[in-house]
Amino acid sequence: MASETAIDEGNCLAYAARDSSGVLSPFKFNRRAVGSDDVSIRIAHCGLCYGDVLWSRNWFQGRTKYPLVPGHEIAGYIKEVGANVQRFKVGDRVGIGSCVNSCRECKLCKSFLEYHCEKGRTLAHNDIDIDGSITRGGYSTFVVVHERYVFKIPDSYPLEFAAPLLCAGISIWAPMKEYKMDQQPGKRLGVIGLGGVGHMAVKFGKFFGLNVTVISTSIWKKDDALTSLGADQFVLSSNEHEMKAITKSLDFIIDTRSDNHPSESLDPYLVLLKNTGVYVIKGAPTQIKFNPLHLILGRMTIAGFVIDGTKITHEMLDFCAEHKIYPIIETIPIQYVNEAHDRIMKKDVKYRFVIDIENSLKE
Amino acid sequence: MASETAIDEGNCLAYAARDSSGVLSPFKFNRRAVGSDDVSIRIAHCGLCYGDVLWSRNWFQGRTKYPLVPGHEIAGYIKEVGANVQRFKVGDRVGIGSCVNSCRECKLCKSFLEYHCEKGRTLAHNDIDIDGSITRGGYSTFVVVHERYVFKIPDSYPLEFAAPLLCAGISIWAPMKEYKMDQQPGKRLGVIGLGGVGHMAVKFGKFFGLNVTVISTSIWKKDDALTSLGADQFVLSSNEHEMKAITKSLDFIIDTRSDNHPSESLDPYLVLLKNTGVYVIKGAPTQIKFNPLHLILGRMTIAGFVIDGTKITHEMLDFCAEHKIYPIIETIPIQYVNEAHDRIMKKDVKYRFVIDIENSLKE
Repeated sequence: MASETAIDEGNCLAYAARDSSGVLSPFKFNRRAVGSDDVSIRIAHCGLCYGDVLWSRNWFQGRTKYPLVPGHEIAGYIKEVGANVQRFKVGDRVGIGSCVNSCRECKLCKSFLEYHCEKGRTLAHNDIDIDGSITRGGYSTFVVVHERYVFKIPDSYPLEFAAPLLCAGISIWAPMKEYKMDQQPGKRLGVIGLGGVGHMAVKFGKFFGLNVTVISTSIWKKDDALTSLGADQFVLSSNEHEMKAITKSLDFIIDTRSDNHPSESLDPYLVLLKNTGVYVIKGAPTQIKFNPLHLILGRMTIAGFVIDGTKITHEMLDFCAEHKIYPIIETIPIQYVNEAHDRIMKKDVKYRFVIDIENSLKE
Repeated sequence: MASETAIDEGNCLAYAARDSSGVLSPFKFNRRAVGSDDVSIRIAHCGLCYGDVLWSRNWFQGRTKYPLVPGHEIAGYIKEVGANVQRFKVGDRVGIGSCVNSCRECKLCKSFLEYHCEKGRTLAHNDIDIDGSITRGGYSTFVVVHERYVFKIPDSYPLEFAAPLLCAGISIWAPMKEYKMDQQPGKRLGVIGLGGVGHMAVKFGKFFGLNVTVISTSIWKKDDALTSLGADQFVLSSNEHEMKAITKSLDFIIDTRSDNHPSESLDPYLVLLKNTGVYVIKGAPTQIKFNPLHLILGRMTIAGFVIDGTKITHEMLDFCAEHKIYPIIETIPIQYVNEAHDRIMKKDVKYRFVIDIENSLKE
């Protein structure tokens, strides 16, 4: 059994998946030394993303390098700073997301779109670090990272709420800013999928004054969408009558669904957009189909977004602190992580699990 | 035989398709009277769009209403103006494109995106005109239209060259302006398909100082692309080696292909885009598929464009006249139109047929 694998050796305690079962168990390994531009972060909380489950279970074309330590929504405290680091001091409250390195020289890095670095970003887990080791994520006690990719968490903002902002939050914030959804109150936003990412789209959307329609496959999410999250409408995507009633009514759609749509088709959703509408894809189905006439005759745009970059992430964190916008989370101990992964696959989470690393991952 | 159909009655002589054979033959019908905000235009030239062939042959889900008079790239002379018309006088050189009416009151009309009118545009053919009749296009001696949808053709610009600008030209100009391709010399543009629309993308691209790669299925278009049109590179899309050599090299792609891509897939083209790249769809395949990870991980955009609106069309016409940018056309008499339709389907045209209505369509 994977959970019976002996603990390995090293300076960092973690939970790792050992094979495609995705079952996570205690694991030790060595983090690299703190370089002159690096900081070391004692991890307090780590959010739990759908991607963590997919990587743990080797769903990305066999690319998972085991043992895999997932986790890329990381919040904690600076525990050591490199010689050149000016921006942080020991004890600072900080976070990192899924991008932990990039060239810092290309045009996209210089535009603070480090995740889209022309020479290739380094991801927080399952990637190659600068010392040649495999990067390991936030289901662990500490992490070493170049200071460029570290965000200051505002003093008033609890770390456990900050963690989910660093993937789920920014992946929504970036397209909303790009398409100026924050400057057009009264416009109509459809949110497909009400998970960790989708619920942030509703939260931001309502804060920006948008009229928000949740489009979901799960009728049991209706009450919560309308009450806790304050969505204006809830549409069950399998209900043709409800779908038809919102034809050509939406200015924007943010599609957070990560499994495939029925028949892999976007057409039932594209018809919900008004002309000149924008369809943001944030989920990760394996394939999407559509009739291009929707786009052409409606002057529509389909755009993909994910982590974006550091500058906009700083802005989001400050904004959320100033305006007291928080994700809805379920805090769990690391020992619950396998059950949590299973519950994510059953869509049984409101709306983001956050691991209390600080109080549960101990020798 | 369709071509033996008797000539009907009315004030306007035209060529019409009578059934799904798409064969066009002489036809007479009545144009509506000139209203107070209308002008009547004596047609001199009409461009021949791939859409004309599809409508003639009833390829749009059986929606063609026969007899169909195609044609939506129309250039000619004002022959009558309504009582309220100030902008035009008899004899003015003018053109109209595929949008001949809209509500003029919605937000999109007020933004001069009349083609995308929230209440629905009226197309130049096969649509319902204000008097309840079926709109009939430019394969005819004259047309009556609200002045809003009429463009002044600059004095120096020959009418036969102006005609193709009003669909092929504007459909390319609009996305190039939207994505500021005119302000980024040196950036790399891929143009898929080298027909009436695609060759305008090459022309505008080269004028804007872009590095232009033509991506085509037809090797026999290579010399012409590189010499007459001045493209910087030609890539045969069926040649894996050539395609691989331009992976992640393009800032923009304009896809003008109107039949389906192999396996209906955009993936072989999306991998040619750099991160943050833009993929413009102007062709009309019946279906498109793609792996959304390309979009998400590369922060890419897929955008549909067609006629856009009146303001930007005026700008394009003035720009083309000022800078002497002309489409490459083959002028034909109306009697050649059936052969021209056949040649379009065989991709045997460099690059746009234009019917010399003035000198060939006579009683």
